[in-house]
Parts: sequence; C-alpha cells; structure tokens
Amino acid sequence: MRVTALAGGVGGAKLVDGLAQILPPQDLTIIVNTGDDFQHLGLEISPDIDTVCYTLAGLANPLSGWGRENDTFMVMAGIQRLGGPAWFRLGDQDLATHLERTRRLRSGEPLSQVTRDLASSLGVRSRLLPMSNDPVRTMVRTEELGEIPFQEYFVLHRCEPRVQGFRFAGADTARPAPGVLKVMEEADLIVICPSNPWVSIDPILAVPGIRASLEYLYSGKLHKKLVIAISPIIAGKTIKGPAAKMYAELGIQPSALAILAHYSSLLTGFVIDRVDGKLAPEVRIPLLITNTLMNSRIDRRQLAQDVLDFAGRI
Amino acid sequence: MRVTALAGGVGGAKLVDGLAQILPPQDLTIIVNTGDDFQHLGLEISPDIDTVCYTLAGLANPLSGWGRENDTFMVMAGIQRLGGPAWFRLGDQDLATHLERTRRLRSGEPLSQVTRDLASSLGVRSRLLPMSNDPVRTMVRTEELGEIPFQEYFVLHRCEPRVQGFRFAGADTARPAPGVLKVMEEADLIVICPSNPWVSIDPILAVPGIRASLEYLYSGKLHKKLVIAISPIIAGKTIKGPAAKMYAELGIQPSALAILAHYSSLLTGFVIDRVDGKLAPEVRIPLLITNTLMNSRIDRRQLAQDVLDFAGRI
Repeated sequence: MRVTALAGGVGGAKLVDGLAQILPPQDLTIIVNTGDDFQHLGLEISPDIDTVCYTLAGLANPLSGWGRENDTFMVMAGIQRLGGPAWFRLGDQDLATHLERTRRLRSGEPLSQVTRDLASSLGVRSRLLPMSNDPVRTMVRTEELGEIPFQEYFVLHRCEPRVQGFRFAGADTARPAPGVLKVMEEADLIVICPSNPWVSIDPILAVPGIRASLEYLYSGKLHKKLVIAISPIIAGKTIKGPAAKMYAELGIQPSALAILAHYSSLLTGFVIDRVDGKLAPEVRIPLLITNTLMNSRIDRRQLAQDVLDFAGRI
Repeated sequence: MRVTALAGGVGGAKLVDGLAQILPPQDLTIIVNTGDDFQHLGLEISPDIDTVCYTLAGLANPLSGWGRENDTFMVMAGIQRLGGPAWFRLGDQDLATHLERTRRLRSGEPLSQVTRDLASSLGVRSRLLPMSNDPVRTMVRTEELGEIPFQEYFVLHRCEPRVQGFRFAGADTARPAPGVLKVMEEADLIVICPSNPWVSIDPILAVPGIRASLEYLYSGKLHKKLVIAISPIIAGKTIKGPAAKMYAELGIQPSALAILAHYSSLLTGFVIDRVDGKLAPEVRIPLLITNTLMNSRIDRRQLAQDVLDFAGRI
C-alpha cells in the first residue's frame, strides 16, 4: 500500500515514524507544512520539516518537541554574550541544518531539493516533500496583538494571545512542490496526521491544487483512494500544542468531532482514541477506535499498523 | 597624541593592540580593511574586523591568525555531517559573531554601527571603524585561475596561484564609513600598520577620499600631521601572509624598501626592523630602526611605544 501523509510538527512526525517502521521507504511520502517557516538570525528555518526529519532519523529532542536530542548551545551562548536575540534557542546541530539549508536556498536551490538531501544525509529513507517551494506564511489573528506571524505567537508569546482566525500569506500564488500532486495521485492511502488542523494541515490544504486534489480523490469513484484523518484531540485536549485552545477560542467545542467537522468533506475514514469511544454514534463515516496516544516508538508503530489495517478494511 | 591606525589582519591587529595598551581609548581609532569581507554559509564575514576586534579583546586565536582562541566546532562538525562545505572552518563563538552581524546588517543597520556594538560587547574600548559601509571586494588576478575573490585565493587555494594584480571591486562608488575622514582629520598621527600593502592597506586607500585625505595631510604644512608606516617585510620575508610572495610574483624584490616605495608619496616617517638596518642609507625620510617582530603582548606594546616616540621626535 502506497501512503502519502500530510504532517505538521510533533504529532504528525510521530505517526509518520510509525508508518516508516512498517512501510518500505519507496511506499511512504510525507508532505510537510511549511507555513511555520520563518527567518531568524538571517537563517531560513523550517520547523515542521526539521521535526519530521529529525524524528524519522531518530535524532529529535523528545522533550522540547523541536531541535535535536543532546544538542549543545555554544553558538547561542555566544550570541547572548554579544547582546543578540536569544529567545529562540537553536542548538548547534540544529544551526548546522539551518545554515546549510540557508546557504543552499540562497544559491538558488528549491526547498524540496535541499530537504531531500538534508534528510538523506541524516539517514531518512522515506520521501519528504515540503508542501510548496514558494513561501507560505501562517499568520495568526489575535485579540490582543492583531495579526502576528505564527512563530511569534507560538514561541515568543507561548500561544497565550486569544486566537480569532488565521491567514496563510502567499498561499494564493504558491504552487505545490514538484512531486506533491503526483504522490497524492499515486498513493492508495492519504493520511492526515494528528497535527493541528488550523496551523499544520490547513496551510498544506491552502496551497492551490492540494485540497482540490484531495476532494477529487475522495469523491472520484475512479480512483478508489482512501483519505483517513487521525484526531489530534483526545478527550477534548491535545497532547502538545494549542489546537484545543484554538478551537475553544474560535467558539468550537474542542473534541474529535470538531476535527471530523473540520475535514468532513475530505475524509473516507476517521480515527479517534478509545477514551472518545462514546462519540462513535455521531460519526457517520467509517470509524476506527483505537489507542492514539504515542508515548513510545512501539505505540507509533502500533497506531500506524491500526490505520493501515483500517484502510485495508474500508 | 591622537592616533588613527589603518589596519588589515594579524600584523595590523598586533600593533593596534600595542597602541591600545598605551593610549587612552578615546585617542585611538582603527580604520579596518573590509576588502576581504565575504559571504559564506549565507553569513556576512568580516575577517579583518574580527581579527582586530578579537585581538583587542584578548580573544584571538594566536595560532591560526583568525577566529577565537579555545573555540569549539560543534556547528562545523554538523555541517560536515550534512555534506555541506567545511573548507572554511568557523568556530562556534566566531559563528555567533557572524550570525549576529548578519542579522543586524540584514535588518538595515550599517556595518560601522554593528562593528561598534559587537566590539563593545566583547570589551574593546578603542574605536573600530570599517573603511566603508559599502561593499568593496578585493579580487586577485592570478596566472592559473584568472580573477578570483581574495578569500578563495587565500583560504581555498592557500595563496598558491601566482599573482598578477589586484582589483577592488566596488571601491569606485564606496564612501568612507561615517567618521573615517573625521578621525583622519583629527588625528595627530596616522599609523599604517605592518599589514599587507596589496590586500590590506591598498583597499582602504582605494576608498575615494581616504588616499586623498592622507596625501593632503602629508603635503599640507597646515596640519602638521604625521603619517608613519611600519614595514611588514623583515629580511625580505613576511611573518605571516603572502605579501613577500606577492611582491616577488609582481617582479618587485620583496624588502622593506619595496614597502617604502609602495607608500612613498604618503609617508612622513618609516619604521623597519633592526635586521634591515643596512637599508638605512637608501631611506630618504625620517627612519626608525627597531625591533618590529611582535611575538608577545610586551613586544606589541614596545613597538607601539617606539613608534609614538619616533613620531614625537619627527
């Protein structure tokens, strides 16, 4: 079964790691959100690409949810001594990634090519694709601060401002990265990972052609493809990140059902956690109820296997 | 005595450190070559500014002639693992400088302001001025490789190609950095440091206004200012760097006399090493013969004191 996964940061990376434990590399492609990408210290930073890449390479920092495990902070300490901005703490190995990516992007290479090579250098064997080589920037509309870039909302303001909405600046004219539409076309199963719908998956869907392609694949009886989403909300909460808080602030009860409603027109199947089993009667598409908490690499693999089995049954 | 020094890399930095050991900070300004500046890994690197700055701060690496003492190389090791270019080895503390400089330059601050603040953060009390805030790039014309940027000649090709000439790209339209002409005007003594005339001092003199100002100060009986150069060539050789090799390749016998001829129209006084004492009869301007080798901080201070005393006697 050829699988294409749409993923954002930590939650998405974990499920993708589960899929990568099962599927041969050539059968798994991950389309990653780049709406969180930003410049810092003059460097081009792609947080979700790095989180997915580091997680697949077994190098991710499991505590912070970003950066590398056992990284050092020599450069950051130096920048702090120089009076520079130290609020976004980048480790030395992480900086190596950003420096190399920045160098190559500035020399004119597309992000997709740079991502492929960096992932391969780190030992990642599945295919990683940025959603687009064109800049798309997630902007968060907040009550207190007006519209601010996602990283500012996320890191500097720790998700504290009340959210009123989102905008994906640049999405109108962005093109899917080379290969994106093709792997969606060729996949037997498209997995929408348990990532934040508002700021991890929606930016991907905002790239012209991607949502349309998903809708076509779903509705088209021709293709017999499956689109399955896994709820990132368990018992009304998220494991990590502000998705539940965002739903609440936007006036929507945070629950797996809110996720289902979010994607409804796109899905062939939906996966929720056992603790949300009572919601089953409200779900009118094929539903898998299983353990969706991924505390260990074994959990990741198990959830991935459950999703693949579920897809086989639909 | 108010002193303005023109300096390039290592030799210049040492004498400047000697001057800084004697003069009160407000009486010493150093105008630094930026012709070697280049971009690497997407970062703005100013090797001579950093060498002078690190030397004055007591942080320079005395062995390599560039970078910081006791620096670590965590990021560089990471870049190498990613298959990136590792031929130019930047330490982590050095990278912190480049990152912070790059960030501030890209946000629109002029190099002179960034340099002032970085130097001050590192504890440098004398005034450091880049020769210009506009890019001037030293290009080396070589027999084997045609015209190549200085850093490529210097680092990648280890000064091996035979030199045919130099060009200071951008010099025509560069303006002296704010304060440069003023400190030259206000100084009682201008010191041309024992730096490479071709690639450290000439780029400074190529910035429109700087050579003219020196010539005016020298010729103008009005000002009674002194311009003293210290020969970087001792017994036909340089302590570090390719100046002697360059003279030879350009068909000029490398010696202190070649340095004198290089600057002749500008100088009020000239300083050569004791081992070159036999050249004295050929020098027709006030001459100081002293120890110009600077192996220790005490040597630096002694040479600086000798130069200041010499200036007092002219």
